Amino acid sequence: MTITITAFERSPDGGKGLARDTRVRWALEETNQPYDVRLVSFAAMKEPAHLALHPFGQIPTYEEGDLALFETGAIVFHIAQQHACLLPEDPAARARATTWMFAALNTVEPPILDLTIARIVEADKPWSQARLPLVAERIRTRLNQLSARLGDADWLDGAFSAADLLMVSVLLRLRMSGILDEYPTLAAYVARGEARPAYQRAFGAQLTVNAAAPMAG
Amino acid sequence: MTITITAFERSPDGGKGLARDTRVRWALEETNQPYDVRLVSFAAMKEPAHLALHPFGQIPTYEEGDLALFETGAIVFHIAQQHACLLPEDPAARARATTWMFAALNTVEPPILDLTIARIVEADKPWSQARLPLVAERIRTRLNQLSARLGDADWLDGAFSAADLLMVSVLLRLRMSGILDEYPTLAAYVARGEARPAYQRAFGAQLTVNAAAPMAG
Repeated sequence: MTITITAFERSPDGGKGLARDTRVRWALEETNQPYDVRLVSFAAMKEPAHLALHPFGQIPTYEEGDLALFETGAIVFHIAQQHACLLPEDPAARARATTWMFAALNTVEPPILDLTIARIVEADKPWSQARLPLVAERIRTRLNQLSARLGDADWLDGAFSAADLLMVSVLLRLRMSGILDEYPTLAAYVARGEARPAYQRAFGAQLTVNAAAPMAG
Repeated sequence: MTITITAFERSPDGGKGLARDTRVRWALEETNQPYDVRLVSFAAMKEPAHLALHPFGQIPTYEEGDLALFETGAIVFHIAQQHACLLPEDPAARARATTWMFAALNTVEPPILDLTIARIVEADKPWSQARLPLVAERIRTRLNQLSARLGDADWLDGAFSAADLLMVSVLLRLRMSGILDEYPTLAAYVARGEARPAYQRAFGAQLTVNAAAPMAG
C-alpha cells in the first residue's frame, strides 16, 4: 500500500532538516519503506482539504490506504510498531522506548520550541533579548538531566529505537544556538544519529525539495 | 501485580487536580485497577532515588513488578493498550486515537503551559503582563482548530478513549484563565470528561491527599 506524507513546499529552515517531515522520512528510511511526498504551500495548509487531514493545519501527515494520521510522534510510532528495528518486541523494553518517545516530545522539546518563540516569533518585542537567558536556562535544566541519564551509552535504552530518532531530532533544533555544544555527550549522541545512513537519506530527500524551491522573498 | 505511582506530597495547585498524577489515576480508574501511591516531596524529587525512576525529576512515575515508566503520556498509553475501554482494538481506530494522544500533549498542551510560564514562572518579570495576550492568542488558535474538528461530537474519534482523557486533562488547565469558556463546545467536552465516574474517583483521591497536607508556607 502506497504511503504518502506531506511536507512544506518551501521549508522555513531552507532545508536544514528541522521541519518535522524529516522525522517521518527518517523512520520510513530506517524501515526501508518507499513513500511519496505531497508538497503543500503555507496557504494550502490552512485550507479545508488539508485541515481534513490535519486539524491543526501543519505538516507532516501520513496516508496509507484508508488510514490518515497526523502528529509526528504518532506517525513515527505507527511506523515503529510494525518494525522491530525501531521498537523492541519485548513488551517492557517497548514500553520504556515509548516512554522516551513521549519524553522527547513532551518534556525536552517544549523548552526548545520556546527558544524559537523567543528568538523568532517574538523577535520584535521589547522583551525578546531579555527573555533569552531564562529560556536557555530552562533548556539547560533538561539537557543536564538528559546527559546525566544517557551517561556514556550510545542510545537511550539499549539499541537505537524510535525514541532516539525523536530525541536526536528534537536536540538538532538546538545546534544553531550553540547550547548543544555545551554538552559533549549529547552532541556526540546527536552526531551518532545523524551518521546513520537512514538519516542521511532522509536529510538528503528534504534538502532536494528545498534546494529546488525558489528562495522566499 | 501491584501498581505503584508517585504523586506530589503537596501539589502546587492545592488539589485542583491539575498535577499529572490525576491523569494516571483517571486511566487506572477507567480500567478498574487498584493502585498504591507513594508521595514525594519537592526535595525528594531531585534526589538520586527518584531520579533513577524519573530522569527529569518529576511526577508521576509508574511501577509494576520490574517495569518502571515515567512520562504521563507513556504511562496512560501503557495502561490503555491493555484495555479496549481506553484504546479501540481496531488497528486504524487505535492509530487515530494514538494520534490524538500525541496531539493533546505535543500540539495543544505546549501553548497552554506557556501561559503558566508567563503567569507564574515569569510573573516577576517586567514583560509578564505584556506577553499574556500573545500567549493567549496562540492558545486560541489551537482551540479554534480543535473546536472546529470536534464539532458537536461527544468525543474526538467515536467512543471515549485515552485521547479524550488526555485532551480533557490538558484543557482543564485553562479553566481558571476563562479562555475555555470562550469555546462552549470545548467547555461542554471538558465537562463530559469530568462527569465520568472514573474521573470523579481520580479527582477525589488526589484531593484527599492535598486536603490532608498542611498548607504550604
